[in-house]
Amino acid sequence: MNKYLSLLFAFFFIGSTLSAQVLTSPDNNLILTFELNDNGTPVYNLRYKGKTVMEKSKMGFVINNAPRPFSEGFSVISVSNGSSDQTWNPVWGENKEIRDHHNEMLVSLIQKGTNWKLDIRFRLFDDGLGFRYEFPVQEQLRHFIIKDEKTEFNLAGDGKAFWIPADYDTNEFPVTTSKLTEVAGLIDNVRKEPLAAKAPSSSLAVQTPLMIKTDNGLYINIHEAALVNYPAMHLNVDDKTFSLSAHLTPDKNGNKAYFQTGATTPWRTIIVSDDARDILSSNLILNLNEPCDFEDVSWIKPMKYVGVWWEYFTGGGSTWAYTSYWDVVIGKTDYSKLKPNGHHGANTNHVKDYIDFASKNGFDAVLVEGWNEGWEDNTAYMKESIYSFTKPYPDFDVKEIHRYAAEKGVKVIMHHETTSSVINYERQLHDAFRFMVDNGYNSVKTGYVGPIIPRSEYHDGQWMVNHYSYVVKTAADYKIMVNSHEAARPTGLCRTYPNWLAQESARGTEFESFNGNSPDHTTILPFTRLVGGPMDYTPGIFQGDLSVYGSNKAKLSTTLVKQLALYVTMYSPLQMAADLKENYERFPDAFQFIKDVAVDWDNTYILEAEPGDYITIARKARNRNEWFVGGITDENSREAIIDCSFLPVNKKYEAIIYADGKDASWKTNPQSYTISKKVIDSKTKLKQRLAPGGGIAISIKEIK
Amino acid sequence: MNKYLSLLFAFFFIGSTLSAQVLTSPDNNLILTFELNDNGTPVYNLRYKGKTVMEKSKMGFVINNAPRPFSEGFSVISVSNGSSDQTWNPVWGENKEIRDHHNEMLVSLIQKGTNWKLDIRFRLFDDGLGFRYEFPVQEQLRHFIIKDEKTEFNLAGDGKAFWIPADYDTNEFPVTTSKLTEVAGLIDNVRKEPLAAKAPSSSLAVQTPLMIKTDNGLYINIHEAALVNYPAMHLNVDDKTFSLSAHLTPDKNGNKAYFQTGATTPWRTIIVSDDARDILSSNLILNLNEPCDFEDVSWIKPMKYVGVWWEYFTGGGSTWAYTSYWDVVIGKTDYSKLKPNGHHGANTNHVKDYIDFASKNGFDAVLVEGWNEGWEDNTAYMKESIYSFTKPYPDFDVKEIHRYAAEKGVKVIMHHETTSSVINYERQLHDAFRFMVDNGYNSVKTGYVGPIIPRSEYHDGQWMVNHYSYVVKTAADYKIMVNSHEAARPTGLCRTYPNWLAQESARGTEFESFNGNSPDHTTILPFTRLVGGPMDYTPGIFQGDLSVYGSNKAKLSTTLVKQLALYVTMYSPLQMAADLKENYERFPDAFQFIKDVAVDWDNTYILEAEPGDYITIARKARNRNEWFVGGITDENSREAIIDCSFLPVNKKYEAIIYADGKDASWKTNPQSYTISKKVIDSKTKLKQRLAPGGGIAISIKEIK
Repeated sequence: MNKYLSLLFAFFFIGSTLSAQVLTSPDNNLILTFELNDNGTPVYNLRYKGKTVMEKSKMGFVINNAPRPFSEGFSVISVSNGSSDQTWNPVWGENKEIRDHHNEMLVSLIQKGTNWKLDIRFRLFDDGLGFRYEFPVQEQLRHFIIKDEKTEFNLAGDGKAFWIPADYDTNEFPVTTSKLTEVAGLIDNVRKEPLAAKAPSSSLAVQTPLMIKTDNGLYINIHEAALVNYPAMHLNVDDKTFSLSAHLTPDKNGNKAYFQTGATTPWRTIIVSDDARDILSSNLILNLNEPCDFEDVSWIKPMKYVGVWWEYFTGGGSTWAYTSYWDVVIGKTDYSKLKPNGHHGANTNHVKDYIDFASKNGFDAVLVEGWNEGWEDNTAYMKESIYSFTKPYPDFDVKEIHRYAAEKGVKVIMHHETTSSVINYERQLHDAFRFMVDNGYNSVKTGYVGPIIPRSEYHDGQWMVNHYSYVVKTAADYKIMVNSHEAARPTGLCRTYPNWLAQESARGTEFESFNGNSPDHTTILPFTRLVGGPMDYTPGIFQGDLSVYGSNKAKLSTTLVKQLALYVTMYSPLQMAADLKENYERFPDAFQFIKDVAVDWDNTYILEAEPGDYITIARKARNRNEWFVGGITDENSREAIIDCSFLPVNKKYEAIIYADGKDASWKTNPQSYTISKKVIDSKTKLKQRLAPGGGIAISIKEIK
Repeated sequence: MNKYLSLLFAFFFIGSTLSAQVLTSPDNNLILTFELNDNGTPVYNLRYKGKTVMEKSKMGFVINNAPRPFSEGFSVISVSNGSSDQTWNPVWGENKEIRDHHNEMLVSLIQKGTNWKLDIRFRLFDDGLGFRYEFPVQEQLRHFIIKDEKTEFNLAGDGKAFWIPADYDTNEFPVTTSKLTEVAGLIDNVRKEPLAAKAPSSSLAVQTPLMIKTDNGLYINIHEAALVNYPAMHLNVDDKTFSLSAHLTPDKNGNKAYFQTGATTPWRTIIVSDDARDILSSNLILNLNEPCDFEDVSWIKPMKYVGVWWEYFTGGGSTWAYTSYWDVVIGKTDYSKLKPNGHHGANTNHVKDYIDFASKNGFDAVLVEGWNEGWEDNTAYMKESIYSFTKPYPDFDVKEIHRYAAEKGVKVIMHHETTSSVINYERQLHDAFRFMVDNGYNSVKTGYVGPIIPRSEYHDGQWMVNHYSYVVKTAADYKIMVNSHEAARPTGLCRTYPNWLAQESARGTEFESFNGNSPDHTTILPFTRLVGGPMDYTPGIFQGDLSVYGSNKAKLSTTLVKQLALYVTMYSPLQMAADLKENYERFPDAFQFIKDVAVDWDNTYILEAEPGDYITIARKARNRNEWFVGGITDENSREAIIDCSFLPVNKKYEAIIYADGKDASWKTNPQSYTISKKVIDSKTKLKQRLAPGGGIAISIKEIK
């Protein structure tokens, strides 16, 4: 299909007021209306199948040293419309082909008095709206500071929201489900959550992607696409009027973005449907990102990995640090002369055990954390030189591990915890990547625990947003894939930079190690965090009762089978089998599902979905005739209906069904499961009972 | 001589109060007394030949989250004394040998309640005092934030001060001469000076090095040595009590230093004498710095240079920028497709002319500014990616220039103006240095015009202090010498890193291009700015009336001969002949002095000196039997007495004397000069009249 089949028409209204402009989605279900109000303020509203999605909502900015707000006094220079229908192929993804079908309207405005120009570009898809601000190169305006963005998202009424508090330094809060009118009463308590760095918004505000189910039955997801050179957007909540509005992450000087004409904002996105499944199947955010920036993508590979990692959370005593001596100084301390603490996780023999395990079980890679100098004194914010990214601890023989892993056909995943000493990381970046290439690494997990250096910055601010992209682009120069933890939540940039395999950027499995996740957590994340891109959730914990390791009394919020189902419901091209290898050896039959499950897909079928309650998804493995189904539920048991019509017709298939045991329950009996085989076809409708906090996992192969 | 000839004695007073401890200088002229007052606060005082230099002055800190100020409640753990007498050889300098002779006292303190420990180390030389705080590694204190340093410098009475206002972002103010009691009345007006970045202290404060002539005839200079991982110190002024106190440069979060036990502060220095010449000949600051950090220093060479530079200030129309198109984007704009503006300074032919000129006249190097992409839109603070440091403009043929310069035996000096986009500079640093090595450059002039990115930082704060050193140390890895402009003023670190040839860090000759320097300016700088290290003052302007170039009506504040004298009075291993080559070609006889004058010295003799009035200095060239004398005066004419006893006895010498003409005056007739020859010997006393704003320059050779 051609890009931009038609540029339908263009109006010119210089200096005049504007009659309302209407844009419809290709299927006509969505109708966007744009106008200037009496004050010359841009206003849009959005309707879906006759229901109001957004009431009239204002747009614009506050700019530093401007004579008036850059949100009023506008007149229209021109309006032009067009449409586009094309398909494209992601390097990896939930589907091998993605259709980008939308109608577009570009409104060019000029402000009276300043003569400053502003363009607003709308793209309306069948599944939602994207719009962004574009600042054309112009005579009267060049560099400026965005003090505030005034974009509104005025909901028509109350609704059930799935939200975490706005915070400039973290997105690891538990998700709260409540009416919008209840947010104010709940937020202070949620903000008490102990996290490594917190910078709460002073106003009542929540983070995006924000999922809302309105009282009149619409599912609305608000987020952004292509967050580049701009701060992450949170949403102010006015719980009286149900008005949400952009709340940009500031720097510590109170500025939101340092900007120059010629640049554009990210896309503001509103995905909408009356069927929750459409939210999960939407490609709107990917479609609003730029195409892949790389010519050669042959080096980018989805992968499944194990690692020296969960042992640091179990309470079993394993440590990232090599010694118990605190006062180490990078570049000066001679580690070879220090006494080891005797329980350092990343030692050569232990890593080799995991390489053996990965090799034997068909995993692509082994993550090793705690391999490098500096963990003894990883004090965030107070010191800049925390780690070396090129000096392994004395008991980590990087050359031997490289040799051994290569012999076993396994990759080792590099770990760069920066502890948010970001400038120091950038200082070492090229050396660190060169070290990786020299030692056979092709992927890195980055981390940003704690408050940021440069000390003017927050995790979600413009400068850090640029930093994350800078790392990913620099990594690409070395053919290195990136999995960034504690970064600003994703906005679909993995389309442009597909070496950005995954991010954490939400509350992952690690919080299970202190009872931090509730049973509905993973029924919400695909509607919130995952809307922006894949998450390195690190599922696969079989030994959910951590008291077996020592003093940690935490228990997982899921059954064992639900842990299997997460490999399908939590889409990521990077999936960890996070538990200790001993636990997989105890349950080899259940482990088989993790060994079998794909991490890259030809097609995805959202079978059932309701945020906070349940999700059932089927996917076809990329380039092979295998299908995997995952279903999960919250704290309530339920019956999943798995309609197998996604299978090609007139063929027989063997399904291996991993189900919760009859007596299974996340609370009392998480390790109860059954495994059965069944012959099915495209007409089969499987009814499967999921335990409280439980799941269902099915692998399907054609019978030849 | 041995280092630390003796550790004389050690007292132990754990938990007790301390009787006053006395330390004397090797010549017994200086007496330091240290005690704890009734409040347990450390207090020192200093006397010189019976006169009070510093009244009792408190010491200590305010530390974040501390239960009490870290300046009280101390008791003494131990006091130990020692002495040292050794000589060392700088890689380059005013003297080939420097004696470090001092007595030392180390006081170890512990604070009641916190049990935090603090050491104070005093070193008393014949020419002054240095002391610093040392935080020993300890159990109870590790990382902390220094919110304030409470060091006092309590003068005994009023005095004439040579000061510039405390400002965290600039040290380019004109120097004001006034009583301390007059500072408050004058400072607001001085602060109006238009400078590229300003961040004035909120309190009444001035910068160091601060030069004071007390009412009772003492010359006192207060500064610091070895500024490493700490903010630059300014001085609060209490003009009622004549008490000065440390005013550390904060970051924008209001924190002064992020610190860790095991570290030390810079040395606080008080140089004192009853003869102004001793201030200029003092090596106290160099002696308090660490020895050279490099094993191989063969690549470090003092040098004399010309350049494509002054033409940007004359008003003649030459520009750094290649085009007149503003909206360039580094990495995207294709400069080869842009229309040149026709008056770009750094074009290949013009640079070759300067290479020819340098080669013909024996200069080592040619500075070229404006060679690289980005000058069109060098907007500080608002954008990060301003310049490329590896992409020359299309009309600057770097390979051909390299080839041509090498053929002519001349080096080209690289220019890295960062416009204070510092992180972006660091991102490019290795590539930039590699580009230099690949293209035959061995020195770089760096620049930091405008407010800083990271936006938490000021030019004089801890983070930037670390940055400047980081650049210098990284440059050394590439055998590159550095001349940093707009950096924090020097503190003798050129001893440790002798590739740090010079800095600007004060008001240089460029301010003459808008009438910015007064005739006494260069009679003050050696007592203030130069106390910390060499300055790239860029003298040698022969055409002082800039109206010849166009609309600029500025006139230099000196005679032509004073410009010659500055090569001797303003010590630097890096000296520019800053004027256009055409002007040197007009005055070839006067230019001969610049061609002849050395830039590195065996010995220096301060013949006459009074801050703000006059300076006369003789120096012997390094490794050759040539001497050069420079004498300058302020707006008043005077007679310099040049006692030639610095010459070896019983030999005859030819002196070429460059003197102001009888009718010379900086205001009305700056280009009037005479050149005469005279036979002299070590008994000669030359009496030379200096015109208002004038000077005297003499070159001396033995008659064989």
